[in-house]
Amino acid sequence: MSIDSLEDPVCYAVIFSSLRTGVDEGYAEMSQRMTGLARQQPGFIAVDSARDVTGFGITVSYWQDLASIAAWKAQVEHLEAQRLGKEKWYQHYSIRIARVERSYEFEKSN
Amino acid sequence: MSIDSLEDPVCYAVIFSSLRTGVDEGYAEMSQRMTGLARQQPGFIAVDSARDVTGFGITVSYWQDLASIAAWKAQVEHLEAQRLGKEKWYQHYSIRIARVERSYEFEKSN
Repeated sequence: MSIDSLEDPVCYAVIFSSLRTGVDEGYAEMSQRMTGLARQQPGFIAVDSARDVTGFGITVSYWQDLASIAAWKAQVEHLEAQRLGKEKWYQHYSIRIARVERSYEFEKSN
Repeated sequence: MSIDSLEDPVCYAVIFSSLRTGVDEGYAEMSQRMTGLARQQPGFIAVDSARDVTGFGITVSYWQDLASIAAWKAQVEHLEAQRLGKEKWYQHYSIRIARVERSYEFEKSN
């Protein structure tokens, strides 16, 4: 979707890699709703997301600290989205929490 | 492409987020070649990659330590791929190096 910049490279990344089921029921709306809601959480910094034509996707969200990530994981609407995700939308997923230690950017000038 | 499992959660992730230019010249071949070559490097653990229809993609590779990542960055064929990437294939990219501290998996049983 986008490449958000990180002003402070010392932060935490949540790497969410997932394979979708063939079930769509409400997925697009929920995905958009959760991205919008995440952006409003305390400690949220940025999010990038890509899903390919096979249904495999990676979303990386960046947070100021582990407490912000824990609070977002326990947010009420997000809990319901997680439940529906397991029930309907995801065949498989992995979540990795990682401390960002270095960051580089390249922007084409021409 | 896939969801590789991490047996040891204490490792390092290289999060490569990129927006492609419209230029294809050799991109697919080079991308495939680099993924194959990365898998052969000392310290390589796993790689996941997704690119959406807009040309935005995220590739996350996992490595045993920072020295392995530095060696891969400096690998001769990879240096040439990086040069061509800046010259032709990428409009924008960011690289974030992060220490993976926790890992969860979900696999749908039904």
